[in-house]
Amino acid sequence: MLGRTYESQNCSAARALELVGERWSLLIVRDALFRGTTRFSDFQRTLGLARNILAARLDRFVEAGLMERRAGSPHHEYVLTDKGRDLQPVIIALTHWGDRWAAPDGPPILYRHADCGGSVQQQTVCGRCGAHLAGDEVRAEPTGQGA
Amino acid sequence: MLGRTYESQNCSAARALELVGERWSLLIVRDALFRGTTRFSDFQRTLGLARNILAARLDRFVEAGLMERRAGSPHHEYVLTDKGRDLQPVIIALTHWGDRWAAPDGPPILYRHADCGGSVQQQTVCGRCGAHLAGDEVRAEPTGQGA
Repeated sequence: MLGRTYESQNCSAARALELVGERWSLLIVRDALFRGTTRFSDFQRTLGLARNILAARLDRFVEAGLMERRAGSPHHEYVLTDKGRDLQPVIIALTHWGDRWAAPDGPPILYRHADCGGSVQQQTVCGRCGAHLAGDEVRAEPTGQGA
Repeated sequence: MLGRTYESQNCSAARALELVGERWSLLIVRDALFRGTTRFSDFQRTLGLARNILAARLDRFVEAGLMERRAGSPHHEYVLTDKGRDLQPVIIALTHWGDRWAAPDGPPILYRHADCGGSVQQQTVCGRCGAHLAGDEVRAEPTGQGA
């Protein structure tokens, strides 16, 4: 039963990873989120990745509802949906981890509050008591749903 | 130059995805984090995945410094390092995204504050002014480092 719960949870969280877990996917979403990039040629130029890979990633994002393909002249545009934009906390969390553990020369990019320029942080907090939670203060509880 | 910066940023964040982006990897780390699982047979039983896949994932985690293999009798133990435990915010962010967008029957697992039982939330805040930030209030700034 617990096995089934995890199986199902796998389905839920693993879908995020199937989409953003491939190399380049994260950067495409990040470019769209933080640079406002919408055109194939602009993604291609700033990321420098092969056209066939970029095309496959964008098609997949459209299929999965992370982006909408909008007819344009002379170019289509790829625009993040709410579902795609909602990946922002995932991207920030992954980048922070990478900065701490896999960036020996320092973080190549900083996230800043657009208004005041302060550095952006993520906090894990309790929705009931408001406490800021350290890792060992969080537990996972199966709900019995989605199995 | 901007291209190079992104290239480099890719190296930093993409390493996280190379490790946790594969199916099962996230759940192995989650089991270790939230259930205290350390033994091969326990991971295998609760996740129900093939032994060869589990063995490959654990070996990779050890290589990458996410886990330590500790000699035990009669079994080795796989214990998360600080680097591995530090993936917790990534796992919570991915799970929340999956719950919102890929769990039609509701979240199979809830994260709760161990002390008071409140639901766990992640907030994006400004380290300078303390504002809670919506997606469009965050910008990415190349540092020129790590290129």
